[in-house]
Amino acid sequence: MKAEIIAVGSELLTPDRLDTNSLFLTEELNAIGIEVVRKTVVGDNRELLAEAFRGALNRVPLIISCGGLGPTEDDLTRETVADLLGRKLRRNDEILRYIEGRFRNLGREMPEVNVRQAMVPEGAEILENPRGTAPGLWLEDSGRAVVLLPGPPRELKPLFREQVLPRLERRVSGVRLYSRELRVTGLGESHVEQRILPIYKRFPEVQTTILAAPGETQVHLRFWSDDAARAKKTLDEIVRGFEIALADRIFSQDGRALEEVVAEQLTLNNATIAAAESCTGGLLAQRLTSIAGSSSYFLGGVVCYSNELKTAWADVPAEMIEAKGAVSSEVAVALAEGIRRRVGSTLGVGITGIAGPGGGSDEKPVGTVYVAISHGSGVKDRGTRFPGDRESIRWQASQMALDLVRVHFLYNSQSAIKSSAKRG
Amino acid sequence: MKAEIIAVGSELLTPDRLDTNSLFLTEELNAIGIEVVRKTVVGDNRELLAEAFRGALNRVPLIISCGGLGPTEDDLTRETVADLLGRKLRRNDEILRYIEGRFRNLGREMPEVNVRQAMVPEGAEILENPRGTAPGLWLEDSGRAVVLLPGPPRELKPLFREQVLPRLERRVSGVRLYSRELRVTGLGESHVEQRILPIYKRFPEVQTTILAAPGETQVHLRFWSDDAARAKKTLDEIVRGFEIALADRIFSQDGRALEEVVAEQLTLNNATIAAAESCTGGLLAQRLTSIAGSSSYFLGGVVCYSNELKTAWADVPAEMIEAKGAVSSEVAVALAEGIRRRVGSTLGVGITGIAGPGGGSDEKPVGTVYVAISHGSGVKDRGTRFPGDRESIRWQASQMALDLVRVHFLYNSQSAIKSSAKRG
Repeated sequence: MKAEIIAVGSELLTPDRLDTNSLFLTEELNAIGIEVVRKTVVGDNRELLAEAFRGALNRVPLIISCGGLGPTEDDLTRETVADLLGRKLRRNDEILRYIEGRFRNLGREMPEVNVRQAMVPEGAEILENPRGTAPGLWLEDSGRAVVLLPGPPRELKPLFREQVLPRLERRVSGVRLYSRELRVTGLGESHVEQRILPIYKRFPEVQTTILAAPGETQVHLRFWSDDAARAKKTLDEIVRGFEIALADRIFSQDGRALEEVVAEQLTLNNATIAAAESCTGGLLAQRLTSIAGSSSYFLGGVVCYSNELKTAWADVPAEMIEAKGAVSSEVAVALAEGIRRRVGSTLGVGITGIAGPGGGSDEKPVGTVYVAISHGSGVKDRGTRFPGDRESIRWQASQMALDLVRVHFLYNSQSAIKSSAKRG
Repeated sequence: MKAEIIAVGSELLTPDRLDTNSLFLTEELNAIGIEVVRKTVVGDNRELLAEAFRGALNRVPLIISCGGLGPTEDDLTRETVADLLGRKLRRNDEILRYIEGRFRNLGREMPEVNVRQAMVPEGAEILENPRGTAPGLWLEDSGRAVVLLPGPPRELKPLFREQVLPRLERRVSGVRLYSRELRVTGLGESHVEQRILPIYKRFPEVQTTILAAPGETQVHLRFWSDDAARAKKTLDEIVRGFEIALADRIFSQDGRALEEVVAEQLTLNNATIAAAESCTGGLLAQRLTSIAGSSSYFLGGVVCYSNELKTAWADVPAEMIEAKGAVSSEVAVALAEGIRRRVGSTLGVGITGIAGPGGGSDEKPVGTVYVAISHGSGVKDRGTRFPGDRESIRWQASQMALDLVRVHFLYNSQSAIKSSAKRG
């Protein structure tokens, strides 16, 4: 079944407010096999509101609206939908008594305007709302259902779960949404596309979306099916193909961010880590410590912006900086080795680069970044030039450093391989 | 003039993603007197996409879409709109060369799929996008304008400001939106409301919104008027009232974040700074270095998670940690003083606390944070207990530390006061 969501309220058309109810509604609807095919945000204007509902009624069998059921002049959802479906509004005395009671309980008198909230379109089912004054309404018309819900999330959410969901579940059959998400780093959107296109093209019934996010590419698979076993088998087959095509570039299949994957590897291997950062300015340390319990693996880090501090805090030889430049693979390696020795951690990470907008040269333009890790028996390093602005370059640099740690464990730890295969 | 925004992308119809471009677009459009009357989110489906554009073309003279201009199979905006307006798509060799050049500059070959991004509907104006591969497109049809923009915000925003805004400004006149934004820290939403309600109540024609954001409270004023002088006078009067009511809790009136304000103060005072962080794990350093040119005032920082590193890197006496606990005002002060001495900076900042979810006790529950700054002639410190989760506590802690620096300069630097008054 397909549905549309209409969010009502002029405040949702200002630069300060977003409709977020639709995220909750989408998640709940998807879980019982209802697909959301459109979301519309419309202001408190009778004509525009009527048009939004009219359009949706022509397209889908289920419309869920939120907002516009309040007591004031600009709350028009009730009246507009009643009009559109050719229903009269009648005062419901039971609701009126309930609203009056609510005000009485708060020691106040009900303002006259609230009578509007007791008006109900003919033939509508009332969805009781014990957390607010306006009840929800369920209307049916030629097999289509129109559900009007109040806007405040703390009213809408329980009302939806308690009263709307059971009604919808009776209507939908076995079709459910089955989905997978692969997160990839070190390969751009187009390159991911080229590698996996031959695979997913063979499964036109599965919706494949490739999304570019900072420092990573995500592949989302969505499959609506009434056959759980077949859906699982199909998605497994596609994912197996993707795993071959993308190999170790996939860092997560369960939604986890790169720092979470690395945190688990560190924990499983009883390893500790320390960082010496220049251009990322603490971003790597911040990401590694954003995870609860990070003190068990993250020992410490230094942000050594100046050359002097690179020497003072991570023992980078001043002559090396002089000869190779502060932004060089040699200095990245020296930072990684220096901080590991100083802190006594299993791993040391070094990052140096030019985040811009200033500081670039012909030889080393803005975006040039070197990262390195030092482990007991050697070092690894990578260097590249990232596109984008300062924020983006810093993020990608921290991503490349985390990926270096991830790949190190991937090929140097039996437990990490097992764990990531199991999670997948 | 009225406009609609269409956000294109199946990922925006999942429970995980929201269209946020429309907030930016709305703000920019409002500022030149264009009202957004509807926002639609629609998936990567040719038929549904066509219907969304068709509906909007029937209602408004201006449609702005974002997304669906990528290189992949499911990027359909270009083709759909060309079809709808009866225009043929032609390959534009100039764009193609530009895209190829972009890949070449990054040392990569252009994947074949990217040729799609060089396809242009007949009669379309090309909106150059130096930050990405897909250019924007401007189409006109019977007096209506359809503007197709790429989805990534870091491409969309400058492209809109540089290429779309000037074209729109030629078309509109009259009523404009006048707005102000005050950013406040150290005072919650309700306390801000209590202090400023008596002031803004006197101006019902101005829309006042109080928004809670992590570690800060924002006050937005919006006033639609065709009289620039009157609008300015009214907003000035309200802001003067707010300045008295909120005093030094206002840190910015020009949209700048707290770290930007502090960065300017440091620069104006020729001052340098260094940080020793525990619970914030590098977040403060990362924020201070997120600003271009930060190497002129940020010398370095340490993230000393373990007690040993607090002693080794910031000279916090082991006996003090033993006696007072690592999370104490004494240790925050010692961190600030130690790092300042070590680095030789004008200011030193120390942060220690319990970000949780573990590590709390009855005496020092999760959320307990101490921050301190050390300057040439003394120290200042603050301690509090923040609500919220790990991420929120860490953010608020970094905010409190930055605010301590800000207030220090506010009362210890003539130039900073002048500058912030002028900016305001």
